[in-house]
Amino acid sequence: VETTRSSIKNLPTSGIGLLLAISEDSEAISLGVGSPNFDTPPHIIGAANHALHTGRSHYSPDYGIPELQTAIASKIASETGVYLDPLTEIVVTAGSSPALFNSIMSLVDTNDDVLIPTPSYFAYDFISRIVGGHSIIVPSYEEHGFVPTPDDLAEAVTPESKVLVICSPNNPTGAVWGLDSLKAAADIAMDHNLIVLSDELYQRIVFDGTVAHSILEIDGLVDRCIVINGLSKSHAMAGFRIGWVAGSEELLEGFKALHQYNSICAPMVSQHAALAALTGPDEPVREMIDEYARRRNLLVGRLAGEVPLMSVKAPKGSIFMFPSVKHLIESHLDDMVAYLKGTEGRMALNRLPPSLFRMEDLQSSGSLVAMLFLYARARVVTASGSFFGKSGEGFIRMSFAPTSEAINEAVDRIIRALEPWE
Amino acid sequence: VETTRSSIKNLPTSGIGLLLAISEDSEAISLGVGSPNFDTPPHIIGAANHALHTGRSHYSPDYGIPELQTAIASKIASETGVYLDPLTEIVVTAGSSPALFNSIMSLVDTNDDVLIPTPSYFAYDFISRIVGGHSIIVPSYEEHGFVPTPDDLAEAVTPESKVLVICSPNNPTGAVWGLDSLKAAADIAMDHNLIVLSDELYQRIVFDGTVAHSILEIDGLVDRCIVINGLSKSHAMAGFRIGWVAGSEELLEGFKALHQYNSICAPMVSQHAALAALTGPDEPVREMIDEYARRRNLLVGRLAGEVPLMSVKAPKGSIFMFPSVKHLIESHLDDMVAYLKGTEGRMALNRLPPSLFRMEDLQSSGSLVAMLFLYARARVVTASGSFFGKSGEGFIRMSFAPTSEAINEAVDRIIRALEPWE
Repeated sequence: VETTRSSIKNLPTSGIGLLLAISEDSEAISLGVGSPNFDTPPHIIGAANHALHTGRSHYSPDYGIPELQTAIASKIASETGVYLDPLTEIVVTAGSSPALFNSIMSLVDTNDDVLIPTPSYFAYDFISRIVGGHSIIVPSYEEHGFVPTPDDLAEAVTPESKVLVICSPNNPTGAVWGLDSLKAAADIAMDHNLIVLSDELYQRIVFDGTVAHSILEIDGLVDRCIVINGLSKSHAMAGFRIGWVAGSEELLEGFKALHQYNSICAPMVSQHAALAALTGPDEPVREMIDEYARRRNLLVGRLAGEVPLMSVKAPKGSIFMFPSVKHLIESHLDDMVAYLKGTEGRMALNRLPPSLFRMEDLQSSGSLVAMLFLYARARVVTASGSFFGKSGEGFIRMSFAPTSEAINEAVDRIIRALEPWE
Repeated sequence: VETTRSSIKNLPTSGIGLLLAISEDSEAISLGVGSPNFDTPPHIIGAANHALHTGRSHYSPDYGIPELQTAIASKIASETGVYLDPLTEIVVTAGSSPALFNSIMSLVDTNDDVLIPTPSYFAYDFISRIVGGHSIIVPSYEEHGFVPTPDDLAEAVTPESKVLVICSPNNPTGAVWGLDSLKAAADIAMDHNLIVLSDELYQRIVFDGTVAHSILEIDGLVDRCIVINGLSKSHAMAGFRIGWVAGSEELLEGFKALHQYNSICAPMVSQHAALAALTGPDEPVREMIDEYARRRNLLVGRLAGEVPLMSVKAPKGSIFMFPSVKHLIESHLDDMVAYLKGTEGRMALNRLPPSLFRMEDLQSSGSLVAMLFLYARARVVTASGSFFGKSGEGFIRMSFAPTSEAINEAVDRIIRALEPWE
């Protein structure tokens, strides 16, 4: 008997498994995953500590403690001018992942289409497939700053299209959609009666004066969008598992039903920590963002100056950059494949589970070859751009969340690995 | 445009909304919901505190911290003799609700049948419907201790049956399935190639020397069952959101995919607290169980001795009892309805949202009438047995988790409300 739901069984292999497997190599330097390495700011730890010692160990109200719902609504109001009802239009979740999953599952019915601009976080596509929807992939390109053009978006719309996913600031490209791009997407949503699912998790992490605008700032969108956000990235609180959704009561009706059956409520101590994060001093967050900016500048600067086989533009936001490895692939694909099939390459790759990687996969993507070469030869973990959609081919994702020391060591290793070819 | 997935939109009205709405009345005494009122034991708070102050604020491995997975596997091994691989056959979740939802969603494909013995926790039926399956309700009756007979179970099996849900110790009846009942269910599962989903959340809360056996104790079931458990009830840790699933790697394949997309990992501080709960002193848990036993005995004793219109058997486990109100309904249904339609009754019921209750609903269930009469007249919150399946009609669920003072006051109020009729 087949024991796994067919929509799960039939999912294509995700690159994330390979990425996580490689990341477990303790001798490698990881620019691969998106986990901030900062400590959670002390006033937030203090609030969690207080909650822990004052008996906050029972269920919270399903949709969150009202003080936290109110703090989230206030944040949204001050940033967007949109006033949502804290108790009915904000639901606190155990991280942004249940917020994302339940949003897609509640909105997307069997055979509905979901418009997904790429490169973007692979989960949008996978969740849409799991819940029985169809993903319509909308590619975007470096020449447009990895934001899809309004024409490309409009042409992708089908009669079955129900939801448009926007991820800005973007994982993996670091792109931040301008107000004009959001407005154009909103017009398409209104013309075709789409709901916009706006993943704004990296909203706070922007550089050089960039502002990450919310879809809520666009007139008329409040009744046709669900916004996802959380504190994992902005406040280095990934382990606390606090995210949320914001949207009209009508749009959140299905979400709340799913939330009741698969979550009940977010962790209580974490909710009190989150309240401190949103109402306490913001200086620690700004300091983290400043440090991310320095690390971004370090990695961009060294790649631009010392690694001519890669080409990188400074990302406007998120903790990722998306350098092009097209020149490396064009000039040295065969060399990289030969190395990976040689003794040293095989030694590195043979440790990976066959369910995650086979040698013949090297034929599928030059970016995958580059990722595996950098891993096997330089012991630096990056993520193939192909993991995030076909238009990510020719790029690799690098996180600049690690320390400056780790970034410097990673670049030194990359330089040594590519030295014979430069 | 319809913005809610049809399987959610088409769910029948759940009694839980009405129950929660009534529970918000601060003048009422609630025997309605299942939240332990104990403080989490101090050594668990201490471990959480230590985790909080030693930087445990990052993502954990997806399936949990290995020490906690190992502690869970050890608990299972010592209780059942079954050795599961901690890293691949245990997944730690953010409470038992995501464990339950993801188990059903991963196992049940569109149009698969799910066998659900009732009375039981309403979520099994609702989740099965949400994910596109069909619920096959198997009634059980008081004369068999609210455990379905093997014949009733076997007769309910359809060719499309995929999963059999067992909830023991049971919410709402307090029934605990004996080894013979589990064995009979296991035989049916093997004969018809079913997977058993065993919700053992109340496993520790048993009385009078009762042992709540796990389905894992039955020979041959390890490869066709998923066990759900957690610490919310046993260790008064509901707000920490820690549950888990245990099962073979093959059975958990789909579960892990869902977990990756809708959870990522359980809260980190809570996982360290859970580790202390499972590896530290057990005395605080036994003390809580002893206190539950005293509260159970108090409520059973007073109802049996002083409320002749109800009839109650002492539950073997859980924090609920399920007294019969059949005599009350047979003799005074019209009186209760008349009260609810009178001035005082209307005053109490008019505060409820019309989406949750209309006067004509009183015709549907004598148990609902009794629940609402006890609420409106006595200001005591109970739950209609009809909320948990048709075979719950004629009963109401009462939680004995509240304090002895609250239980005494509730019984005093019930006695005064029923006094004219005794």
